Amino acid sequence: MTDDIRLCRTFQTAPAAVPKDDSAKYLVSGLEAEGFQAPDWLVPDLEDGTAPDMKAEGLENTIEKVPEYEFPGEIWPRVEWSYEDASFREKGREQIDRLVADLGDDIEGVVVPKVGRLADVERAAEAVAEAEREHGYADGSIGLSIIVETGRARSDLREIAKFGADSRLTALVFGPVDYAAELGGRDLGDGMPRWEGLLEALSNEASAAGLLAIGGPFDDLFTERAGLTYYNAEEYADQIEYEARIGLDGSWSLYPKQTIQANTVHMPTPEELERDVSKIERFNAAKREGTGAVTLDGQMVDEATFKNFKNTVEQVRAIDATRPEQTADYYDEDLLERALELELSYR
Amino acid sequence: MTDDIRLCRTFQTAPAAVPKDDSAKYLVSGLEAEGFQAPDWLVPDLEDGTAPDMKAEGLENTIEKVPEYEFPGEIWPRVEWSYEDASFREKGREQIDRLVADLGDDIEGVVVPKVGRLADVERAAEAVAEAEREHGYADGSIGLSIIVETGRARSDLREIAKFGADSRLTALVFGPVDYAAELGGRDLGDGMPRWEGLLEALSNEASAAGLLAIGGPFDDLFTERAGLTYYNAEEYADQIEYEARIGLDGSWSLYPKQTIQANTVHMPTPEELERDVSKIERFNAAKREGTGAVTLDGQMVDEATFKNFKNTVEQVRAIDATRPEQTADYYDEDLLERALELELSYR
Amino acid sequence: MTDDIRLCRTFQTAPAAVPKDDSAKYLVSGLEAEGFQAPDWLVPDLEDGTAPDMKAEGLENTIEKVPEYEFPGEIWPRVEWSYEDASFREKGREQIDRLVADLGDDIEGVVVPKVGRLADVERAAEAVAEAEREHGYADGSIGLSIIVETGRARSDLREIAKFGADSRLTALVFGPVDYAAELGGRDLGDGMPRWEGLLEALSNEASAAGLLAIGGPFDDLFTERAGLTYYNAEEYADQIEYEARIGLDGSWSLYPKQTIQANTVHMPTPEELERDVSKIERFNAAKREGTGAVTLDGQMVDEATFKNFKNTVEQVRAIDATRPEQTADYYDEDLLERALELELSYR
Repeated sequence: MTDDIRLCRTFQTAPAAVPKDDSAKYLVSGLEAEGFQAPDWLVPDLEDGTAPDMKAEGLENTIEKVPEYEFPGEIWPRVEWSYEDASFREKGREQIDRLVADLGDDIEGVVVPKVGRLADVERAAEAVAEAEREHGYADGSIGLSIIVETGRARSDLREIAKFGADSRLTALVFGPVDYAAELGGRDLGDGMPRWEGLLEALSNEASAAGLLAIGGPFDDLFTERAGLTYYNAEEYADQIEYEARIGLDGSWSLYPKQTIQANTVHMPTPEELERDVSKIERFNAAKREGTGAVTLDGQMVDEATFKNFKNTVEQVRAIDATRPEQTADYYDEDLLERALELELSYR
Repeated sequence: MTDDIRLCRTFQTAPAAVPKDDSAKYLVSGLEAEGFQAPDWLVPDLEDGTAPDMKAEGLENTIEKVPEYEFPGEIWPRVEWSYEDASFREKGREQIDRLVADLGDDIEGVVVPKVGRLADVERAAEAVAEAEREHGYADGSIGLSIIVETGRARSDLREIAKFGADSRLTALVFGPVDYAAELGGRDLGDGMPRWEGLLEALSNEASAAGLLAIGGPFDDLFTERAGLTYYNAEEYADQIEYEARIGLDGSWSLYPKQTIQANTVHMPTPEELERDVSKIERFNAAKREGTGAVTLDGQMVDEATFKNFKNTVEQVRAIDATRPEQTADYYDEDLLERALELELSYR
Repeated sequence: MTDDIRLCRTFQTAPAAVPKDDSAKYLVSGLEAEGFQAPDWLVPDLEDGTAPDMKAEGLENTIEKVPEYEFPGEIWPRVEWSYEDASFREKGREQIDRLVADLGDDIEGVVVPKVGRLADVERAAEAVAEAEREHGYADGSIGLSIIVETGRARSDLREIAKFGADSRLTALVFGPVDYAAELGGRDLGDGMPRWEGLLEALSNEASAAGLLAIGGPFDDLFTERAGLTYYNAEEYADQIEYEARIGLDGSWSLYPKQTIQANTVHMPTPEELERDVSKIERFNAAKREGTGAVTLDGQMVDEATFKNFKNTVEQVRAIDATRPEQTADYYDEDLLERALELELSYR
């Protein structure tokens, strides 16, 4: 985590066009979502989520619908791309150009999938830079996030993240389906591997370069037991709690109920907030009273420790700024007020 | 996996000479193996599997016996080497020279153990290149596979694999015994660590560079329970199923029964084959009928998805080409015929 | 492990000053520890273990107390540092200068925490080099060990270790608390992650560069059950046994009882010593009798295998040289004598 809190508890993809009467149905439903169903990032998906013969319509849907809503989070369309197929990169370039031209003020950036080694990520970054120049946007105003889903991107992850520290790169997102297919991973009856080495590296490299790290999609949306089919809340929670434990900043959501869960898991619990607000309050009081080191609950508060308390509070403030209905719902009114009014300076 | 299917479900080492009346007993038995006991790669072992005072005899056995059999798989003798001991490298160079001179048409390459950092792997590759030149073989006609079993080789794994993408390097094979000794790993009663981080990296780097990744040997061949000693099928299966799940292409075998198991685990199951053959058949039918995107079982078939189905079929074809008795035994006759006759083009 | 056995089974930190009548209480108690409570490395802690307003006193305590004792292990004070805060680096430089000036003959080196990428580690190494020059010590006579506890240090671990192979760098020590905070790792009720990928890499890179690898602190010193609060021996043992299995050379201790456990886990068990002493004895006997390969228990003894047996014996000799009361207590007298008198040459 960096000092500037950038929220992406939820990376929710929505097909930009589906073969229904209202082809923008899912896109609109993401834009209109309220309460805990509202994601931090909404990703209109022009890649695998939209059929090849509907991609043009998906692009028009995105350009038409996004400006109609005052979406409080960030909008990050996913375009087509492939490190191994120039025709997909050409489509991606056209989509990026069109999105920046017609939607440059409404999107924070674009999501580029199936990138390969560092050189391919630089190529994607250059495609965004070209669109910026072409349509008069300042350098760096349109962000880039990538899906890490090839052996090459995993192999170059450290170099890609280091490049990202000084670039428009914003988030590293895991893509397990393509990744498993590339490596030849197999489900022998107990599911696919979790790729724990990759996830730990994703968390580390993102952290070292000041980027966001986001987990991959979970598509067993429903499960069946004793004759009943129901939403698979448990397994998704297992996955995203694992992601939170190892320090990923957010999780991928395919579905409003997943968004509720990911938003919740990736925000401080009321207990965490109470604990850290109270520590800062006591720290501030001790600071006013005297000089020298402040000790809380038997532990000295140094700058690093203080930063952790502060992080909790700043994340809640960031959520409150974009999604006040979520913080109002989740935290006690008094606690929230204390968190919003606290003095946050160590010195 | 690359588009050119290169099979190595089984990397079976056989001592090139043993202190028995027939010193080539195990080598010959590998060359003669039939059915599921026949490995994809047979590795006449001149290194740890053969006693120091029998190495010369092992080399003669290899040179004499290999050409006597029409072994349908690949022959990859393992020579001596050591990143930290020039005398072993000198022996390795002599063995490579002799093997290329007298057996260059019969072997696909040599296996070099105990390599260190990238520079040492390049040195091994140069030793093979010298033998090629010396004996009139085309550049790159003799392959190189390495055992990853030192801290240095693990540390340089990414660089070694990248070098391998444009070289004679063919397979990265794990060597857990020397590796554990180098790192000082200890068995405190519940066995040695599995080195999951290394194996995940091996699968990834091999995939990113188009190389094969092969697991390490399992030498608790027999187990004992309730007074009976019997073949330890269960624990070996656990290991190789783990290897298959994370995308290793094959497993190391020390014993015919292990070869049966590894051959089986690393080939598509009849259910996988039926599923993917049927998907391609329906894809082909839909393609003939109309234009636009093809949807199967509610999922769109893009080129990446198609490649996965195709991979399954191509692997079965490759097995069928070298080991028709295995495919005949494992798959229903009708299913196999469908797999062999299928049109495999996406466009 | 390298050929020169360097012991650090226990990396025991002790606050250099605490707010008690005798502010050097814990430091002195580390210096005076006997038997299995005596650590291999004693680390007078001027960083997080000592309050900001007591750091000056901690430095004086260290300079005054260390020379008063004939501590048989190594003394490695931990100074302040931070890759992201120049003021901490300045304090660190002053502490290093003072320690080398007044205690240069009594310490083996200094421990530098919160290092970032390779360039920051080189900066820390240069700070030690400056102090050496300033106070007339030979280049390299004062060592450097680092705490790996930032995303940047983990990201550069391989490069840092490679640099360390030719430098004063001695040990890579894991720091899980700061590391988890940097990555944003969270305890959702079942504890913090173990960071297995990092630990495996730490063991590998240290081994590849001939450095020591040491695990992180465990601070749940006490646990409570059925109304009784008692020392948490079990969980600490779980952690350090895991560390020993994957080849870490030693563990961090915060407490005399932890030192007993870490010293014990990281020394060969009597069974291991008996096994390897006996193998070398039989190897030596066979060598005297004849020529050619020596086979023990059905396995050939090559130089690599021999090195493993030898390692066990050399480690016991190293412990015996500094902590004879530990070896006397742990091993049968006769076995120990055999270990000390054995001829250890392969050729």
